[in-house]
Amino acid sequence: MADEKKYRVEVCFSPDEFDLYKQEYTAVVAIDVLRATTAICAAFENGVEKIIPVSTVEEAQAYKDKGYLAAAERNGQIVDGFAFGNSPYSYMTPEIKGQTVVLTTTNGTRAINIAAKTHKVLIGSLINLQAVIDYFVEKPENVLLLASGWQGKFNLEDSICAGAVTDALLKSGKYMSDEDSTIAATFLYQKASVNYFGFLKASSHRRRLRNLNLNEDIKYCLTPNQTRVLPVYKDGALVNSEP
Amino acid sequence: MADEKKYRVEVCFSPDEFDLYKQEYTAVVAIDVLRATTAICAAFENGVEKIIPVSTVEEAQAYKDKGYLAAAERNGQIVDGFAFGNSPYSYMTPEIKGQTVVLTTTNGTRAINIAAKTHKVLIGSLINLQAVIDYFVEKPENVLLLASGWQGKFNLEDSICAGAVTDALLKSGKYMSDEDSTIAATFLYQKASVNYFGFLKASSHRRRLRNLNLNEDIKYCLTPNQTRVLPVYKDGALVNSEP
Repeated sequence: MADEKKYRVEVCFSPDEFDLYKQEYTAVVAIDVLRATTAICAAFENGVEKIIPVSTVEEAQAYKDKGYLAAAERNGQIVDGFAFGNSPYSYMTPEIKGQTVVLTTTNGTRAINIAAKTHKVLIGSLINLQAVIDYFVEKPENVLLLASGWQGKFNLEDSICAGAVTDALLKSGKYMSDEDSTIAATFLYQKASVNYFGFLKASSHRRRLRNLNLNEDIKYCLTPNQTRVLPVYKDGALVNSEP
Repeated sequence: MADEKKYRVEVCFSPDEFDLYKQEYTAVVAIDVLRATTAICAAFENGVEKIIPVSTVEEAQAYKDKGYLAAAERNGQIVDGFAFGNSPYSYMTPEIKGQTVVLTTTNGTRAINIAAKTHKVLIGSLINLQAVIDYFVEKPENVLLLASGWQGKFNLEDSICAGAVTDALLKSGKYMSDEDSTIAATFLYQKASVNYFGFLKASSHRRRLRNLNLNEDIKYCLTPNQTRVLPVYKDGALVNSEP
């Protein structure tokens, strides 16, 4: 084992810190459990062809004006004038099958676009957790799990999802880690995995969404392994990776 | 209890994120367990009169040229030309009694100076943990625990020290918290407090210092409650707060 090359897996808690971490990885997994990356996975599970992540509402509006299906969320709510935001349930409709959707969200699309400038980006969430793990166990490479956080701050659900991946990759024997953020995320996952709902009861973002009557969304977002899709960023858009 | 005003206690994992957190607090506790804030507490325990924290080696050099006792550390080592760095043991000498010391370190003095622009700043570490807790239990106010991190990144030992304070203040019944970073730090402390050394065995910074043969420093820094000093920033320098 000592002679075997190990790949590196680490956790970055916020897109604001990405520059401190980005150098040593070939792949980045963008994670926004509540709700952007969960909604993206749900959309691919329901047959969407492409998702174009944009960072601003203005960009989304420009696409909408050209006739694209466009989704925009800010602070947990659908932006006025858009048909849908980042509720996974809004993507469970035959309307999106084979379509291209343009999406902007408060935190998640920002993380994707920051990382996509320099790295291969994949989309992670609890609903496609095992698909993410299997991908990196089968073809190991240096990978950074990038939590979207909440307006630049640490958030619990993304960090726990990242910790679920690091826990599995480190146990695979093919990976090592060197950052304290990875130790912390892995511990938090181990503690939370017994009962996601209980552990996240106090999370600030969950409270924020509960106040918006989004309990059904939360339940969906916190239920692991509902799909095998693994969206990947290619040529300006997210597509489903080849199996 | 529902009617009683609760004060707020939160954790910020890095000086780089301070701007996201700073608005709502009257006090900030700067924490750099390995080793700046520990060394500062050790210096006051050993009779230093004042410590002037500066952010750059150049500033420290300018004070040194004027005849001040000056200490400078970068990347765990004493900067060439300075008599001491941030080892707590270097402050356990009669030489510093009644003196003013100028200090610059990789992470800790930066955290102090960032926060001191706008807030009352106190110095926290594991060695004066109970003094910090008692201060805020006796005179509650909104307080942010600012981990120094490592070059902007999350670090385990500062986060755990912050979590030790939040754990005690939340249990006092006088405080509430709202940030996910606080939930995470409190949990990490609860997990670590059984055995600091075991938990931090893998911490990146501890490995960094061990490679520099600083095991004695690490043991000292991770042993809680060795002093009741509580340094506070006033008029450009740290002084011991009145008991």
